[in-house]
Amino acid sequence: MYTGTVTSAETFQRARRPEQKLRRQDAILDAARDLALRDGVRNVSLADIASRVGIHKSALLRYFETREQIFLELTAAAWREWVQALHGALDQAERGRADLVADVVARSFGDRPLLCDLIAHTPLNLERNVSAEAVRRYKLTSLGAVKQAAALVQRVLPALTAEEGLEFVGALASLAGAVWQIANPGPVLAELYASDPELSHACVDLVPRLRRTAEILLAGLIPSRDPT
Amino acid sequence: MYTGTVTSAETFQRARRPEQKLRRQDAILDAARDLALRDGVRNVSLADIASRVGIHKSALLRYFETREQIFLELTAAAWREWVQALHGALDQAERGRADLVADVVARSFGDRPLLCDLIAHTPLNLERNVSAEAVRRYKLTSLGAVKQAAALVQRVLPALTAEEGLEFVGALASLAGAVWQIANPGPVLAELYASDPELSHACVDLVPRLRRTAEILLAGLIPSRDPT
Repeated sequence: MYTGTVTSAETFQRARRPEQKLRRQDAILDAARDLALRDGVRNVSLADIASRVGIHKSALLRYFETREQIFLELTAAAWREWVQALHGALDQAERGRADLVADVVARSFGDRPLLCDLIAHTPLNLERNVSAEAVRRYKLTSLGAVKQAAALVQRVLPALTAEEGLEFVGALASLAGAVWQIANPGPVLAELYASDPELSHACVDLVPRLRRTAEILLAGLIPSRDPT
Repeated sequence: MYTGTVTSAETFQRARRPEQKLRRQDAILDAARDLALRDGVRNVSLADIASRVGIHKSALLRYFETREQIFLELTAAAWREWVQALHGALDQAERGRADLVADVVARSFGDRPLLCDLIAHTPLNLERNVSAEAVRRYKLTSLGAVKQAAALVQRVLPALTAEEGLEFVGALASLAGAVWQIANPGPVLAELYASDPELSHACVDLVPRLRRTAEILLAGLIPSRDPT
């Protein structure tokens, strides 16, 4: 058992005690989160993360399998935090308020740029370069969050079935990932949107677009089973 | 002016005549298309494309700016081909048939795995590593295709406004890109879907999912302006 005093110089020596190991993992996740928020998930490499934490790449791989596993852990954490925020916004919501549900769900993604960026990267990259155990754990977390969110929506809108709640939340989550990427273009395209009259109308604003699609989906789901 | 006879050994010497240059470009696009269909867009590098065409990477960069520009050209071609197919399926369609529109649009993506794969990569990667001129040309093509498709939908469903037609087609196209990635997981996750009872229900089938979402969106759009 390691009993020496941890000095500043030793901070990123190999962590031997479980609590040291957890602290090290958190430091790595924090570094990846900061870099992804600043530069976009696509631009953050394992070397960038290691350099920000102040350790060598090979040391980092004692804590995580791959770059993708680091981001998959961040995605799981973001889903858990997202569903907690939905609880806060929907637990006391008045029944039948589809407009409120559409607004809350749209803003739940608009307030979380990292979650949106990660949603697009998840099936494309993150789920493909990790072990079966890591991807299974991630899927159970993300599916659980979507299911909990669907139940919250269904409590506000009891005309929806459980399946319809899942369809609604699933479609909005996929769109949040895709539309966020369109709403956050690179510098070359951003400049074209700002200067080119033929393209300016194509620039998308995330929350209004998600809110509008959410309203259409709920309008399509609710009257289909309750015709007037 | 180049007047020599082109022999097989010279095929991939530098193309000097315009028609040679076009042939060379087509060969590069064909190679990229074949590889992307076989391995997925994410896995195809510039070196892979060059190797399949039988030229050096540096020679390939005389015809295209970057790997991303090659795929952006393929995406533009796929949008043009997609809208032609929609013309074929919708030009003679009976008015008011929302079920038919939902089915046709869902299958238009289901029949085009490369288009779906490319849609997800476009804002994430392809539009970010090309010149302003290349991304502008691409955007005008893709926006034009979506606008034409929206007009076709609107002709079958005259209760929709032009704006609503665009909302419908835009949402479906974004979902096609996102859901295709989920419906086509890597080998590790595919094996989990097949073997793990907690995850098997999470496996998504592209066309039924898109058709169902299309039906919900159309049900939400149409009665909203024509209450009974």
